[in-house]
Amino acid sequence: PATQTSAAQGQLGFEASTPREWVAQIRAESKASRVAEAREAREVEAAESHSQLADGSGPVPAAGFFSSLRYLGQLDLTYLVCDGDGELVLVDQHSAHERVELERLRGQRGSADVAVQRLLFPQTIDATAAEIELVGRVGDALALVGYEVEAFGAATLAIKAVPAGVRHTDPTQLLRRLLAEWATEGAPSDEERVERLLAEIACHSVVRAGDRLSPGEAEALLKKLDGTEHASVGPHGRPVLLRLPLAEIARRFGR
Amino acid sequence: PATQTSAAQGQLGFEASTPREWVAQIRAESKASRVAEAREAREVEAAESHSQLADGSGPVPAAGFFSSLRYLGQLDLTYLVCDGDGELVLVDQHSAHERVELERLRGQRGSADVAVQRLLFPQTIDATAAEIELVGRVGDALALVGYEVEAFGAATLAIKAVPAGVRHTDPTQLLRRLLAEWATEGAPSDEERVERLLAEIACHSVVRAGDRLSPGEAEALLKKLDGTEHASVGPHGRPVLLRLPLAEIARRFGR
Repeated sequence: PATQTSAAQGQLGFEASTPREWVAQIRAESKASRVAEAREAREVEAAESHSQLADGSGPVPAAGFFSSLRYLGQLDLTYLVCDGDGELVLVDQHSAHERVELERLRGQRGSADVAVQRLLFPQTIDATAAEIELVGRVGDALALVGYEVEAFGAATLAIKAVPAGVRHTDPTQLLRRLLAEWATEGAPSDEERVERLLAEIACHSVVRAGDRLSPGEAEALLKKLDGTEHASVGPHGRPVLLRLPLAEIARRFGR
Repeated sequence: PATQTSAAQGQLGFEASTPREWVAQIRAESKASRVAEAREAREVEAAESHSQLADGSGPVPAAGFFSSLRYLGQLDLTYLVCDGDGELVLVDQHSAHERVELERLRGQRGSADVAVQRLLFPQTIDATAAEIELVGRVGDALALVGYEVEAFGAATLAIKAVPAGVRHTDPTQLLRRLLAEWATEGAPSDEERVERLLAEIACHSVVRAGDRLSPGEAEALLKKLDGTEHASVGPHGRPVLLRLPLAEIARRFGR
């Protein structure tokens, strides 16, 4: 789209025109895939360690699991309470939506589908020399997720476009925070930066604890979880669902 | 009402006409009250021992507790799932209704409000000599809860009226079963027999696990629990409610 930089298209899109560019593109995508896989593995591991704390948390749900749940209502505007087959199921609405949104963003990165909000007037932020240098190196990675940013003088960055859909924080401040972090601590790779950006965008785009969901919205979210890999684990490694077997509930009731 | 025997009215109603009858009536009512109190105490004790098993079961709920719950829906057609103030609350629909109904029946016993189903044709059942002798002794107690029964020859009982509202068993068979039990084992007192009858009538009149309740029916039941003493304990000493604090749920979700 008009909102994407040509540099990003040249590096990771499908417009590579020379064999050398083509090889570089394959390598980058292969690396992106490995990084994402490693991240998934860590998330699943973290969730499994949580599950051991959680009595009644079952194994990873079967295909079609979330669609089969009968939605009862929201608990504390935070959890979706569901009648499952032989169990009471609670779904953390934020973690669930975050997982769904992160997968959607990952699927769209660098493509024409990335939702970008072009700013009518570029927004400028103060920046250190290290941050400006960093943007010069990682500008293409930022563009993959919807940020268009460039140096504007020696101590200022101009932000021309931001990812659309970020509701819970100012996307400009989000970028500023990550740049400051990366300029001091660095990140293992551009891929890690892109992943981190996607996770932050997902986290700040989706419903949170305290958001009221209509039954239709809740059911739509549950259905989307079924189309998502690792749906039982949120991007921060927290469980998305808590399963309380009816047998355990009956025991507590003395039935 | 026409459906009550005059013997029952003479013994425990307000029609006592001599000082001796009046004293007997006071004594009987005082005893009934003591028996009911002792039964309550045993039920509460039994429920408390259950509560110790049940993590998250809180203390006896405050006044207005059940009305304040936001009803979400039925779980497994057995439990009413509710969003409480700071907790997830499950209510066992059968135990809850049984408790409400038992209190209602206790309040009505021997009064004009007892719902009686008079049989168009008396129903006869075979009976032992011991059972027939027993009916002669406890007929008045049976009348207090709606049974009208008398000997019909040497080996038969004629049942002329039964408590109304018993849905889940044949009230005639229920009486037959209890008479057989009492004729062999006996019961501490007529009061115990009346209590046992009321409990059986309540148990067989109310909703059970597997009954579908409309939201309106569920909410009406919750409201009635608030008008009931010992609402957190079913007549069989099982907990009526299970309380899962949100803090515990949040911990399990890693929040």
